[in-house]
Amino acid sequence: MSGPVTLINAFNVPQAESERFLLRWTENAQLMAGQPGFVRARLHRSLGADDALRFVNVAEWDSERELADAQADPDWRASVQRMFQDPGLHVTAHPAVYQVALQLNPGDTG
Amino acid sequence: MSGPVTLINAFNVPQAESERFLLRWTENAQLMAGQPGFVRARLHRSLGADDALRFVNVAEWDSERELADAQADPDWRASVQRMFQDPGLHVTAHPAVYQVALQLNPGDTG
Repeated sequence: MSGPVTLINAFNVPQAESERFLLRWTENAQLMAGQPGFVRARLHRSLGADDALRFVNVAEWDSERELADAQADPDWRASVQRMFQDPGLHVTAHPAVYQVALQLNPGDTG
Repeated sequence: MSGPVTLINAFNVPQAESERFLLRWTENAQLMAGQPGFVRARLHRSLGADDALRFVNVAEWDSERELADAQADPDWRASVQRMFQDPGLHVTAHPAVYQVALQLNPGDTG
């Protein structure tokens, strides 16, 4: 498929490991921000107490091809490995690639 | 807390029920789009085959208070009930309220 895509990655993160996760995630995301086709990444932090889905990254890319190329970059892959092999982090990730199916703006009441 | 919040709601939806889900979700979201504090909602559809997290709604609001008020609206609550009681839909939802912790733009490489 062509056109913009959105990577959504939901992370389960223990409360006590949140700051360490933020550091690792930032290192990782900065590598993405230098790649062609990167539009924007927003890391969302839950206001609730649950570890499940505590952080959600919503990252927009110009195309699925450019996202796939960025994910093939050896530096980025090494950074992902550092996150998941960090003994101080117990994180699980649920990434998937999406298209925007619908957008509603204020007043779009049908 | 004050300031903007983002409701992220991840839905598990069987592939065959996707179009019916889209209709129900749109009815529901249109009620939100008429409420004070609503900024934008984007419904994302997965490019993959998994039922889990097939649709993800990312909805921005001016404040947690306005989001809570909108969720207390009887018409909206009735619409949610119609979605979950629809015998043709087997949907589970994982909603939570978030703040944007970090945003990266192109070139934010540290």
